[in-house]
Amino acid sequence: MPLVVVGSVALDSVETPTHGKRDDVLGGSAVFFSYTASFFTSVRLAGVIGEDWPPQHLKMLQERSIDTAGLQVIPGGKTFRWSGRYLTNMNDRETLSLNLNVMAQFDPVLPEHYRKCKYLFLANGATEIQLRVIDQCPGVQLIVADTMDHWIINDRENVLKMLKRIDGLVLNDSEAKLLTGDENLVRAGRSVLKFGPRFVVVKKGEHGAMFFSEHETYVLPAFPTCQVVDPTGAGDCFAGGMMGYLAEQGNFEPKTLKAAMAYGTVVASFCVEDFSLDRLQQIDRASIERRMTEYRQMLTF
Amino acid sequence: MPLVVVGSVALDSVETPTHGKRDDVLGGSAVFFSYTASFFTSVRLAGVIGEDWPPQHLKMLQERSIDTAGLQVIPGGKTFRWSGRYLTNMNDRETLSLNLNVMAQFDPVLPEHYRKCKYLFLANGATEIQLRVIDQCPGVQLIVADTMDHWIINDRENVLKMLKRIDGLVLNDSEAKLLTGDENLVRAGRSVLKFGPRFVVVKKGEHGAMFFSEHETYVLPAFPTCQVVDPTGAGDCFAGGMMGYLAEQGNFEPKTLKAAMAYGTVVASFCVEDFSLDRLQQIDRASIERRMTEYRQMLTF
Repeated sequence: MPLVVVGSVALDSVETPTHGKRDDVLGGSAVFFSYTASFFTSVRLAGVIGEDWPPQHLKMLQERSIDTAGLQVIPGGKTFRWSGRYLTNMNDRETLSLNLNVMAQFDPVLPEHYRKCKYLFLANGATEIQLRVIDQCPGVQLIVADTMDHWIINDRENVLKMLKRIDGLVLNDSEAKLLTGDENLVRAGRSVLKFGPRFVVVKKGEHGAMFFSEHETYVLPAFPTCQVVDPTGAGDCFAGGMMGYLAEQGNFEPKTLKAAMAYGTVVASFCVEDFSLDRLQQIDRASIERRMTEYRQMLTF
Repeated sequence: MPLVVVGSVALDSVETPTHGKRDDVLGGSAVFFSYTASFFTSVRLAGVIGEDWPPQHLKMLQERSIDTAGLQVIPGGKTFRWSGRYLTNMNDRETLSLNLNVMAQFDPVLPEHYRKCKYLFLANGATEIQLRVIDQCPGVQLIVADTMDHWIINDRENVLKMLKRIDGLVLNDSEAKLLTGDENLVRAGRSVLKFGPRFVVVKKGEHGAMFFSEHETYVLPAFPTCQVVDPTGAGDCFAGGMMGYLAEQGNFEPKTLKAAMAYGTVVASFCVEDFSLDRLQQIDRASIERRMTEYRQMLTF
């Protein structure tokens, strides 16, 4: 089943403690998401870029059969830019600069064939925009959204409105604590359910991810990799693997959701092994399946 | 198979952010370890106490069939005391006071029947003492030790000496990084193997534990519990469950080791649900097996 994603398309500059620095590499939540979801299903990407966006990125996405009809180009505009630095532990980072540029005026108008999709992912972005996208997709079967501290703190009202309209929420551990005011992550995850979504996924970075629904609570660890170069986009890749697998399977039963969590975990473990999409561009679905087998074995006792 | 543990016996005072404070409750690495290992096998405890140690604690341990022949009582001495405060996240804590008392002169002389044991656990304590215990057990089949930052920083020479004489090492994530100077936990865990032990277990608190041997690297998540009252002793309970299961099975093959890691995880999850041994005193082996079944299901997809 085709899958729609709306989110940021960016040029990132990343400093790491052990692997140097990269400037203006391809990034953005919708890009990481689309790329990884495209291992599983056809993806329709909606976002906004400036005229400065290198044409080879567009070509690369299209070669992955990612539909870019929903990618608006703003004449004379500049693409969203983020730059950040990872601290020694590789889990914490600081934002050095953030230029919204064309993202500041982003108001997605989805192409007609996007609106008919049954699976929708709202990557991290302004909550108001996420709500407007939901309005455009009345026939959707599964809506999953990401959010972040900025919106929880500064636009809580809209976040709560959105939570009533989505099926699943994906967020970080610190964001789950912030949203619920509960320091116990298990209770925090369960509390988010009260705001509306039928399931909640709490991402814990190098420590894996937790899943919460009315009847289930579980944790899956991250796949251990000794090659951690750049964690940027790992959370979006997790979501891309998860949603891609759900769309491929065409259902979101509890059993499918758990396997989807595992696929998301495995896909994210590739992402961190190099900058930008570099490592992901070296792998195929078979690589994912091999690591899935290892991951399954790891958790069997 | 009987299992010997040498380590601290303490009276702890614990402050928590949400569940108040408890003074002078039963604690100490060897106590948490013994209690949890005794769900699986017969345990022989070696440690030291002062005359102030409440007699009901001894009775309670003996009722669990824990052999206390190796528990020295120092006439006129005072029992080791630790007091600490947990921060809001319940994962970090600060030590408020530490009085070694009788532990300062602890020089274990193991009873004859202890020395014939095949399974030995050296709970956290002075590395020199750990080495002296190893000398007393020439016929032992499996030696696993715990250590901590204090010894890694201040007695590195002895720690390295000990690592050559043990089969397995259990330590925290921050300690593994400290010992190896590597911030990547997967690489750090593998590097510890080069110092001598055949396997290494890195405990990550609420995030679970990692296992490293020449041929295997894996992570098991913590069992998610929404009732986290007091994490004191959870690491020792993990080790107690792990070693207890190994001793019960009478082997330490890779497959047994992985199941032992899972038992350790499950047992530790009970420990944190109340102060001291309070929660553990409410459960039995069947409770552990039920949670093991849940844990296995959680990791099956």
